[in-house]
Amino acid sequence: MSVKLKGKMIIGQSGGPTVVINRSLVGAVIESLNHKEITEVYGMLNGIDGILKDNIIDLKKETKKTLMRVADTPAAALGSCRHKPSPEECELIFDKLQKLDIRYFFYIGGNDTAETAHILSSIAMERKYDIRFFHIPKTIDNDLRETDHCPGYASAAKYVALSFIGNNFDNYSLPGIKIDVVMGRNAGWLTAAAALARMEGMDGPHLIYIPEKPVTLNRFCEEVLSVYENYGRALVAVSEGLKTPDGKLILEGQIKEQDSHGNLQLSGSGMLGDFLVEQVKKAWGKKLRIRSDTLGYAQRSFHGVRSMIDAEEAWNVGKEAVRYAVSGKERGSVIIERISNKPYKSKISFTELSKVAKVTRDLPLNFINEKGNDVTSDFIEYLKPLVGELPPAGLLKRVPVK
Amino acid sequence: MSVKLKGKMIIGQSGGPTVVINRSLVGAVIESLNHKEITEVYGMLNGIDGILKDNIIDLKKETKKTLMRVADTPAAALGSCRHKPSPEECELIFDKLQKLDIRYFFYIGGNDTAETAHILSSIAMERKYDIRFFHIPKTIDNDLRETDHCPGYASAAKYVALSFIGNNFDNYSLPGIKIDVVMGRNAGWLTAAAALARMEGMDGPHLIYIPEKPVTLNRFCEEVLSVYENYGRALVAVSEGLKTPDGKLILEGQIKEQDSHGNLQLSGSGMLGDFLVEQVKKAWGKKLRIRSDTLGYAQRSFHGVRSMIDAEEAWNVGKEAVRYAVSGKERGSVIIERISNKPYKSKISFTELSKVAKVTRDLPLNFINEKGNDVTSDFIEYLKPLVGELPPAGLLKRVPVK
Repeated sequence: MSVKLKGKMIIGQSGGPTVVINRSLVGAVIESLNHKEITEVYGMLNGIDGILKDNIIDLKKETKKTLMRVADTPAAALGSCRHKPSPEECELIFDKLQKLDIRYFFYIGGNDTAETAHILSSIAMERKYDIRFFHIPKTIDNDLRETDHCPGYASAAKYVALSFIGNNFDNYSLPGIKIDVVMGRNAGWLTAAAALARMEGMDGPHLIYIPEKPVTLNRFCEEVLSVYENYGRALVAVSEGLKTPDGKLILEGQIKEQDSHGNLQLSGSGMLGDFLVEQVKKAWGKKLRIRSDTLGYAQRSFHGVRSMIDAEEAWNVGKEAVRYAVSGKERGSVIIERISNKPYKSKISFTELSKVAKVTRDLPLNFINEKGNDVTSDFIEYLKPLVGELPPAGLLKRVPVK
Repeated sequence: MSVKLKGKMIIGQSGGPTVVINRSLVGAVIESLNHKEITEVYGMLNGIDGILKDNIIDLKKETKKTLMRVADTPAAALGSCRHKPSPEECELIFDKLQKLDIRYFFYIGGNDTAETAHILSSIAMERKYDIRFFHIPKTIDNDLRETDHCPGYASAAKYVALSFIGNNFDNYSLPGIKIDVVMGRNAGWLTAAAALARMEGMDGPHLIYIPEKPVTLNRFCEEVLSVYENYGRALVAVSEGLKTPDGKLILEGQIKEQDSHGNLQLSGSGMLGDFLVEQVKKAWGKKLRIRSDTLGYAQRSFHGVRSMIDAEEAWNVGKEAVRYAVSGKERGSVIIERISNKPYKSKISFTELSKVAKVTRDLPLNFINEKGNDVTSDFIEYLKPLVGELPPAGLLKRVPVK
């Protein structure tokens, strides 16, 4: 294998969309134009399905104007997929890559995506075919290892925070109990972001439940009702992946559908929130104004709400992956390192594919309070600079008339 | 009754929140400071409940800085209520108003709120008590009569449009069927706003179902699946108030809870979306990726997304209500008149309380397509200037590699 490698590049997107995943795509494509080693720039439509089905487009045929507009467009412009290829399909993908004479392969996605890149790069080594394989990180779940945080997360966190700010004032003006279900199957990173909604004099969200800290339904109802008795209202953030102490999802046994990776389908349904509402109602036993919202796909694709830092870093992970590949790294992933917090500064670094593939990362213990129903100030300090300033809001002083 | 009337003013907020309802409050309060006829400025906490329970605050004790921040804060800063007072309570409210020597009464809300103001103003006439009663319009439902549109609507419409833009690109990148349930019990105004999501080359939302056009479950499933067969995907907007041709809500009989006005509880639950998903799945009979989101309270209180025109008009309806009252109008409501569309210009005018109280306004026929499953270009022309520019987004050209 030579350090200098000349040939075609192909890039794809995989997994759940984010509002900045196209910035990584366009960041990589624009950077590739700076390197004469890269002779053609192809895009696979709907991830590796595009290779298997010969749905490959020529990204050099797109104008700069189109690319720049696509960069600011939510979701995956190349189309995404959740297809985990079988060993036979991996061999077939490789046959196709070799036939096309592809020498640079970039795959934007989460840990499942990194695993696919990892498997394909192993086949390359077996076949002694000279090709560079890079994973470019992306996930609103923020659960990739090695990196300080994942592109896509801060923008989703901003959406969640703004949503909870609104819900907080809404719940304050029409008191009752409100349970909001937030995305995040394995880890509580996105649910934890609800804590950013606490502003001047506003205490909600009062409780934050995440998969890392299982809870019995009894305790959940007790804690929610205790807040309600104390404050006359309660705003609660619940992760869709919340578990009971036996390790089972709250709704396990009640959900029929599984996604293509064999996981239970959690998003795109209001079932968990509705179920929790019923439990709390039963536990209260009297008339109670209680509602639930499932924040839904807007968390990952709402147009127009994004973190500036996230947008910048998403571009840079695409760009730097191309630079690492061209400069001689044969396979790997890129990560974000936080250099300083005030002012926030970061840089993009290299890591091994094997360290990112398949595994996930939970919220560390110092980010979770002792009771397991809230986050700590350490977490706020971690998240705040990534999300950036939120628009101000506030309450009246409310001086009673004598 | 004299034209000039000197005395105290009280103001309250009622019904579901919006992101600009506090602008009407602060617009009225700031204007009141310009009129020496208004001696004190009180706020009722949680609408008329604040009068009944003696929870009244002194708004002159709030700093300008606090007021200006509150103006930009979602939901009702005075607290809201959904309480429709009984005849006995109306008399009691009046006893309290007279004891406080209140001469100006402003109530911000929808048609139920206008009705309360209307009833109270009738009692004033019976008692021959000199007091000015004004309703200040507010509702994301946009279903008040007389006015061109309602403060709060355009910002909620903007949220819905941005949500559907995201969902459209999300659905394009991971194809399947997506059903999004939008607020609006009686009228389809807010659901119709999903049509603004159609941008350059994007066709979704493909279908828009509103309460004005009932549909059988069979036809609903057929139309959704027909889009799916033609486009390989389908994005569908459904009003929470959608009815079957017998005039019943889709979920009627399945929902237990009623709100305090005797209406079925629709919001704060994912039930309708989940139910429709099951119906379409059954009708298809094969494996199908189909999801639903219920857009939820974010539609009325998401922080940071609002229409500039809406923010301005919400301020002005508060301000002008005070001016009408001080200048001698004894009771009424204010409305927005559209003077021109390009460029958009409007003015605030006066109308009778009786014309706004209780009644609602449906989407007119020229805003609905013939099949009853979409809006017309007339509607887009009506809504677009109110919402203002949306951030651009776009697709790749996708030129295949030979």
